[in-house]
Amino acid sequence: MNDVSRGGSPVHRRSKAGHRWEGVDCLPYKEDEQARFKAISRQVLFSDPVLAAELRFFEVAPGGFSSLERHQHAHAVLVLHGHGQCLIGREVRRLEPHDLVTVPPWTWHQFRAASDASLGFLCMVNVDRDRPQLPSQEDLTDLQADPSIAAFLGALSHDGVDRVEDTKSKETRGLDLVTSRRDGRRFFGKRPRS
Amino acid sequence: MNDVSRGGSPVHRRSKAGHRWEGVDCLPYKEDEQARFKAISRQVLFSDPVLAAELRFFEVAPGGFSSLERHQHAHAVLVLHGHGQCLIGREVRRLEPHDLVTVPPWTWHQFRAASDASLGFLCMVNVDRDRPQLPSQEDLTDLQADPSIAAFLGALSHDGVDRVEDTKSKETRGLDLVTSRRDGRRFFGKRPRS
Repeated sequence: MNDVSRGGSPVHRRSKAGHRWEGVDCLPYKEDEQARFKAISRQVLFSDPVLAAELRFFEVAPGGFSSLERHQHAHAVLVLHGHGQCLIGREVRRLEPHDLVTVPPWTWHQFRAASDASLGFLCMVNVDRDRPQLPSQEDLTDLQADPSIAAFLGALSHDGVDRVEDTKSKETRGLDLVTSRRDGRRFFGKRPRS
Repeated sequence: MNDVSRGGSPVHRRSKAGHRWEGVDCLPYKEDEQARFKAISRQVLFSDPVLAAELRFFEVAPGGFSSLERHQHAHAVLVLHGHGQCLIGREVRRLEPHDLVTVPPWTWHQFRAASDASLGFLCMVNVDRDRPQLPSQEDLTDLQADPSIAAFLGALSHDGVDRVEDTKSKETRGLDLVTSRRDGRRFFGKRPRS
């Protein structure tokens, strides 16, 4: 038995310049015309059958942001570099390197890089997790009633929602972003046959 | 419902100077006379009932080192700062900031800071995990037969084992470091009644 790797995955992967790693694919998000400056990439640092959680690294370019969403599973976030802000529930917080952020279940959240700095953060999540839920117009109206949240969301598109998701992710592979006719919520799923 | 915290745990904990965090206890390891310079502290950054894994931060002072051990559960390590080396199985690797290290199940491993620099690393582990196993004299003899491993272990005590463990840890709380009369292995358990 080779002690040093298993399943072809080496035990030591060196850091490279620009917050990249040996043997780790960098998965870009598509740019969305309606959600300007959404410039975010994802790298899965640890994903292993013997681990109950994954550790991912997200890099948000200046002015970029992650999806505004919520879900049953929690996030455990550590800022690795840069500056920005996050919305967690109804709190907007400024983020500095090595800050910790907990996203509890069913809590609206979004991460945004500063306009003049990138934001790179680690995010730990359970391997078994549910799909994100996107806000309905009613949810957005409710959030935007708070001036600090409205300001946080201000640079977003008209409805604050990023419409183009990373379809390479485990959660969304092969799924469409669907709007429910019942309650207006958007989620990842199979588009109903017409 | 308060969106911002649950169970008294705030969603945002700021980084402080010296690789510390707001609201995170720093748990020192005891110094061991037989294992000089073992100077390592532990901070549990994320531990939550809804998370299947924990994220801890270990800070090893210059010349310090973690226990040489193995277990069924795996480690997912990201170096946050500093320099040092690790032994993973039979490989000795130099560590730089942001390097990734996977410790597969049942693989001997130890992390050592450089003599002139500290080593700080994040370690993700499953919440449900087994207790570490320490090397027997036979295991050590086998490891030390490799010159690079012998050099790596060289600064350790005569048998390469740290005898004083952090008894505050979840795994070892209330347990003693016991040496098996059968095979010489040491493990955490209840000391046999004499």
